[in-house]
Amino acid sequence: MNQPIGVIDSGVGGLTVASELMRQLPRESIIYLGDTERCPYGPRPKDEVIQYTLEMVHFLLEKNIKMLVIACNTATAYTLDLLKEKLDIPVVGVIQPGARAAITNTRTDNIGVIGTEGTIASEAYPESLKHINATITVHGLACPRFVPLVEKGVVTGEEAYRVVEESLQPLKQYDKMDTLILGCTHYPMIKNLVQEVMGSMVSIISSGEETAREVSTILGFKKRLVTADKAPEHQFYTTGDPIIFEQIASRWLEQKVEAVNKIQLTKVKSMEK
Amino acid sequence: MNQPIGVIDSGVGGLTVASELMRQLPRESIIYLGDTERCPYGPRPKDEVIQYTLEMVHFLLEKNIKMLVIACNTATAYTLDLLKEKLDIPVVGVIQPGARAAITNTRTDNIGVIGTEGTIASEAYPESLKHINATITVHGLACPRFVPLVEKGVVTGEEAYRVVEESLQPLKQYDKMDTLILGCTHYPMIKNLVQEVMGSMVSIISSGEETAREVSTILGFKKRLVTADKAPEHQFYTTGDPIIFEQIASRWLEQKVEAVNKIQLTKVKSMEK
Repeated sequence: MNQPIGVIDSGVGGLTVASELMRQLPRESIIYLGDTERCPYGPRPKDEVIQYTLEMVHFLLEKNIKMLVIACNTATAYTLDLLKEKLDIPVVGVIQPGARAAITNTRTDNIGVIGTEGTIASEAYPESLKHINATITVHGLACPRFVPLVEKGVVTGEEAYRVVEESLQPLKQYDKMDTLILGCTHYPMIKNLVQEVMGSMVSIISSGEETAREVSTILGFKKRLVTADKAPEHQFYTTGDPIIFEQIASRWLEQKVEAVNKIQLTKVKSMEK
Repeated sequence: MNQPIGVIDSGVGGLTVASELMRQLPRESIIYLGDTERCPYGPRPKDEVIQYTLEMVHFLLEKNIKMLVIACNTATAYTLDLLKEKLDIPVVGVIQPGARAAITNTRTDNIGVIGTEGTIASEAYPESLKHINATITVHGLACPRFVPLVEKGVVTGEEAYRVVEESLQPLKQYDKMDTLILGCTHYPMIKNLVQEVMGSMVSIISSGEETAREVSTILGFKKRLVTADKAPEHQFYTTGDPIIFEQIASRWLEQKVEAVNKIQLTKVKSMEK
């Protein structure tokens, strides 16, 4: 139970999930792997996303992780069921926790979801919401301008506010909508702006925060929370440029991240228990 | 996966948990058993609480439940570990979900807990919180006047406000406390009053809401959510007066509850898998 939690993402977005894990589970060690070189996964064919994700998982299994977090909406949509079936360790994605938190929060059964074009087109959130409560009304909206904004580091100020306000305009017509899911791991960086634009009557649900909460739930339920009395040790791996990764990670995690390891992933034929 | 979820409590308090389960998981059927005749469990010796709880569990296992929710703080403190070990179905208590939600919510690592004298004296919440994050500061406060108030049905108005205000006075000195756990299943009925007295800077965490959320997480994680396309069927059992139970249940669940069954629990020698 003192092994690390593995977190995979197509790039840096999943760092918002890692950041919440560190905050909510400060005794747990995290191994983060971002496939920055092949990011984004969104526009890629399903088979390719599955292949790339399996390569990441294979790499982390060698590091003896006790739990796997798929901190990428696209990878969650395509591989969660497969990985849950194949792996002996618990696997959690980012879609279901956000959906569940929205259901806990809403009093009107009227929920909005914003995400990348791929995530919204996949209908993964409406499916997950309606699986639990078939009568819920879901308003999906793709916000393709948000990720470039966040990756440029423009998360406050006039330009950022304008982009967020213009993008969210179509959601403002839904009076009954009292809950909005940030269905992309980049969006927590502009949560305050989204809140400002949507107004205080709409609760903003951050997938990262909720995913960390569910990791805590499942590790607690399985009695797999850390017991060792020592400081956690986090490790970071990227398939892309480690210097750029270091800079973004340091900013997003609000701590100096050093010694990011550049790795190459290798093709996995199959993954057996 | 279409079997019911079993909910046990020493009395009627757990109905707030059942109510949240019905709201958050509207397709799931609930079997509720309240040991009203022997309520409250709080002042009873540990062995007796374990014995009574095992009797309730034994009764619900015969009903073929797929999951057990211990909707009673005292019973959770004394039997959760035991039942998790003994039963083949998932078991969830009310303490850990509230603690986890408080950790997700706090930004100051400064958390308050209110409950009955037994729950506060047991230190179950501080233990659960510190198990996850050892640096958290916890302020516990027993509020013995709240349960009688709620059971009398006095949950709004001047008298209720005065009792809540006087009781919570000792917590008002903790400026950094930004999160308060309602560590008793009766308290959600006066959540609005607690919020008013504590002010808008303090988030109020309701164990019932959070327990329902974790039941959803674990059933989802285990792929045990209902799949059948039919309306849920709830059943209610009490060891006490079924008429009084019906009245309270109808009020608390905001729906007409009928045909509450009065049962007698029988001594269980042991419980084997």
